[in-house]
Amino acid sequence: MSTKTTAAPAEGVREVPYRLGSLQATGGRETTLEIGGRRIGGGAFATIAGPCTVESADQTLSTARIVRDAGVQLFRGGAYKPRSSPYSFQGLGQEGLDILRRAKEETGLPIVTELTDVRDVEAVCEVADVVQVGARNMQNYPLLTEIGRSGTAALIKRGLAATLKELLMSAEYVLAQGNPNVILCERGIRTYETSTRFTLDIAAVPVLKGLTHLPVVVDPSHAAGRRDLVLPLSMAAAAAGADGLIVETHPDPDNAVCDGPQQLRADEFGAYLRQVEAVAALAGRVPAPVAVPA
Amino acid sequence: MSTKTTAAPAEGVREVPYRLGSLQATGGRETTLEIGGRRIGGGAFATIAGPCTVESADQTLSTARIVRDAGVQLFRGGAYKPRSSPYSFQGLGQEGLDILRRAKEETGLPIVTELTDVRDVEAVCEVADVVQVGARNMQNYPLLTEIGRSGTAALIKRGLAATLKELLMSAEYVLAQGNPNVILCERGIRTYETSTRFTLDIAAVPVLKGLTHLPVVVDPSHAAGRRDLVLPLSMAAAAAGADGLIVETHPDPDNAVCDGPQQLRADEFGAYLRQVEAVAALAGRVPAPVAVPA
Amino acid sequence: MSTKTTAAPAEGVREVPYRLGSLQATGGRETTLEIGGRRIGGGAFATIAGPCTVESADQTLSTARIVRDAGVQLFRGGAYKPRSSPYSFQGLGQEGLDILRRAKEETGLPIVTELTDVRDVEAVCEVADVVQVGARNMQNYPLLTEIGRSGTAALIKRGLAATLKELLMSAEYVLAQGNPNVILCERGIRTYETSTRFTLDIAAVPVLKGLTHLPVVVDPSHAAGRRDLVLPLSMAAAAAGADGLIVETHPDPDNAVCDGPQQLRADEFGAYLRQVEAVAALAGRVPAPVAVPA
Amino acid sequence: MSTKTTAAPAEGVREVPYRLGSLQATGGRETTLEIGGRRIGGGAFATIAGPCTVESADQTLSTARIVRDAGVQLFRGGAYKPRSSPYSFQGLGQEGLDILRRAKEETGLPIVTELTDVRDVEAVCEVADVVQVGARNMQNYPLLTEIGRSGTAALIKRGLAATLKELLMSAEYVLAQGNPNVILCERGIRTYETSTRFTLDIAAVPVLKGLTHLPVVVDPSHAAGRRDLVLPLSMAAAAAGADGLIVETHPDPDNAVCDGPQQLRADEFGAYLRQVEAVAALAGRVPAPVAVPA
Repeated sequence: MSTKTTAAPAEGVREVPYRLGSLQATGGRETTLEIGGRRIGGGAFATIAGPCTVESADQTLSTARIVRDAGVQLFRGGAYKPRSSPYSFQGLGQEGLDILRRAKEETGLPIVTELTDVRDVEAVCEVADVVQVGARNMQNYPLLTEIGRSGTAALIKRGLAATLKELLMSAEYVLAQGNPNVILCERGIRTYETSTRFTLDIAAVPVLKGLTHLPVVVDPSHAAGRRDLVLPLSMAAAAAGADGLIVETHPDPDNAVCDGPQQLRADEFGAYLRQVEAVAALAGRVPAPVAVPA
Repeated sequence: MSTKTTAAPAEGVREVPYRLGSLQATGGRETTLEIGGRRIGGGAFATIAGPCTVESADQTLSTARIVRDAGVQLFRGGAYKPRSSPYSFQGLGQEGLDILRRAKEETGLPIVTELTDVRDVEAVCEVADVVQVGARNMQNYPLLTEIGRSGTAALIKRGLAATLKELLMSAEYVLAQGNPNVILCERGIRTYETSTRFTLDIAAVPVLKGLTHLPVVVDPSHAAGRRDLVLPLSMAAAAAGADGLIVETHPDPDNAVCDGPQQLRADEFGAYLRQVEAVAALAGRVPAPVAVPA
Repeated sequence: MSTKTTAAPAEGVREVPYRLGSLQATGGRETTLEIGGRRIGGGAFATIAGPCTVESADQTLSTARIVRDAGVQLFRGGAYKPRSSPYSFQGLGQEGLDILRRAKEETGLPIVTELTDVRDVEAVCEVADVVQVGARNMQNYPLLTEIGRSGTAALIKRGLAATLKELLMSAEYVLAQGNPNVILCERGIRTYETSTRFTLDIAAVPVLKGLTHLPVVVDPSHAAGRRDLVLPLSMAAAAAGADGLIVETHPDPDNAVCDGPQQLRADEFGAYLRQVEAVAALAGRVPAPVAVPA
Repeated sequence: MSTKTTAAPAEGVREVPYRLGSLQATGGRETTLEIGGRRIGGGAFATIAGPCTVESADQTLSTARIVRDAGVQLFRGGAYKPRSSPYSFQGLGQEGLDILRRAKEETGLPIVTELTDVRDVEAVCEVADVVQVGARNMQNYPLLTEIGRSGTAALIKRGLAATLKELLMSAEYVLAQGNPNVILCERGIRTYETSTRFTLDIAAVPVLKGLTHLPVVVDPSHAAGRRDLVLPLSMAAAAAGADGLIVETHPDPDNAVCDGPQQLRADEFGAYLRQVEAVAALAGRVPAPVAVPA
């Protein structure tokens, strides 16, 4: 499951606290994950795109078609939405999962969707090819453990105040269950600066790549909180060596149920993706051809 | 359930996003919670003390006796411990809960213990008078909702990078289930300063008291990470108007299973408590006499 | 110049980078500074009060009388104001210094005022008993060095993102010039929390007291940015072991030239001071009687 | 002095607090600065390279030759070094300036060097083509004002806890003196994360480019504090739209007087620069041909 060599280290796996995720664990080889016929890591660049929230079948399916045609590798959309307020819309739940299943059937794109409750593992894993663990749940250990047991791939977002070592330790909760399919995600940390929603810690990308064999992606949408910053931050992430991006796009962001201001307009998505992939290529990462299922 | 008046506000409850927890919701009156015959809030100062972790019956029961004799209102101890590493000791679990039950029977002190998994709600609530939601789980909404449904009191710790408004919104998840028994806890936020484990945001106390009718306590032990700072930080918290403290103490901190360096020595606990309560009195808060159960 | 013993350390002065300011440098004894007949440190609690800015002779003299009558030890007021914008009012300059001189003559209170330009050292030191180095200038080494040479006492405020060790190193720039009269000031650091202007790092007080023999004061006004928080933060600072406070007060805050919202109303100042001093006494610090000049 | 158009805004200059630096002030056109025949801004990408500190004529001249041959636009080196400790090496001072003058004569490269004391303005400006204002002095207003008066270009580094608006306001102190030659520099802010020396706020680049017509550069060396991160961070900065970089390089970093671990090896500098410039080109910025002096 691994190809590209990053450095030379060999032994000493036991000495790092993140045993299974460490670069030492693979003798310095980056892991390439295969998810629904798409590749990420080890030189394969993957873009995960879709709306913040599954709002309706129409909005979801039309977005899925657009991003598939633009050439993304995976489709994302939230059915269960963790919200700061109990009085806010919490996602369509099972209905949202059903819509995602249709999007998958129609486009062939593997699905990335968030899980927030350990009791929903089974339902979510029935549809999801990658289960997203949001920043608020990065240290929700029962949730991580159950995803580990499920065998479904996990995309773990860094907590707002989590160190990179803590992120690696959270990955270890999944890996320790025998599930090697983990993707790490930098999505901005909380600082005093208010011109962006969060502060994208771009150095997290090369720091993590020097510590772990797991794929590392960046979420520019939540970090920025502003559409106009998504392209430059995406290009920066690709230049810094990210293995992919997870980005929000919506056919009509001004009328999005949530996070409208940070979602890319779907009709600009193709141009966006070309620019990002050109930079990724300079950093030695290219989208892998879609593997033909046997 | 409420007594002391803080300010004057009256209407406008709907205008604040934290509807039920806002000071407007009670017309400006602070709430006094009664927990196992002890009072907290509305002028009643309560100290919650005990070891970080339930290690054994001996260690737990001897600590419980000491803090009861010193005059604390509630006993704390962790049976389920969220740990950054899956390879670290995760607490005694059910065995720990059984030891806590014995401590309660022997000392009469109500029990505060942490819950980390929504599937353990029932087991924990059988023993706990107050369920602690740790900083890592402040935005674990399914957990908060289930505690809300249980009716057991919740002590919610502020996340490492949570704003005070987000803390109030998390409380709302419990309150919205019809459970009015919520205590908020400031335990330090993450900053660049490394001389302490976290940075105790002392202003959180008066800021929260100006926004909510709920009791506000401070955890000086986790904020400091150093025993020598626990007394000055506790006195500062009392002076700033906290309704109580949650503090770690251990008969033999040097041999504690975890967080030894920040736990007070049990034999110094009485002197510690007298100094803190003297300051609390200057801020208008005194330990309430133990109510005699009918 | 020193009295009270804090701990026991003795040798090892060379091993700490802040050689002259370290507790080891005095064998563990806290320094008591005498400034214009007032004492601070080593058990003597001193309050420094006055308006943010010297606006006029009337405003300054009336405030000086009020705080003198309330019993403060030193008077503060800004003649040179560092402002983020070059288009904002920058202080009355020399005229402001002249007004401060009159306030001193009339009330007998020693003067604390800010210095921002190394070329103004002489003019400022002619009036000032204590030269304030603002947070923005904490690492302005030429300025610190010149104050060191002047022999005038320095009150050094912690920078917005300075560690406590860096604050101690900045003090060393003054001390290394043979000027032992340095007061350190915690005034809040910058974090993500927006309910206060800065986050008062209350633990800085006991941490510094464990590292240095120099007096440590707290500025609750700038930390809070809100008048209603000044009393609780002041009480917290006193409880944590601060040797004094530097606080803003104005006869008519609503019409203050700057920082109105955080300045205490002068007519409430006496009551404020009594409450703070009561807490300081519990932490072992009392205002020293005014020494009679020979 | 300006070429490339960024957006459309036109009027409203008075409404932004950073009047002269705002994008509105030029009607949305980016400024191109010409410094010693080199261009920066408005599409021209410039790299400023050299050692952290001027240690000797040999080290300085050999580095200057290497970076000139690699194709950088400006040479940097510190003669006056602000150091946290008064007991540390503070730079060669005037002797360092003399060495920089020789480097300029020999290589033709314009010089960037730091100024820390307002009394050294004349001496530094005699040699410097660009005066660097370090992070510690970003709000040293007398210093900024004097540089404004000197007419020499200023490179202003963002303070460790400065907001982008505060950085723009500091630039205004220079601009308000009639000196239009200002370059802004993102060099990392202080956060809780310890795997890098500071956290490079990569979003600062596009945010600033959306607010100001001034050139924006990035300092990857200080942000990272680690040599292995300098290339990925430099590529990220170029991808995000920076107008240039200021980077440290040393012939023998292991024996550098200061900041050795973060300085690039001079013999790897050419390869480094080619990779960065390839990314910059994708973001629409290319090194401008050296203008032939009349």
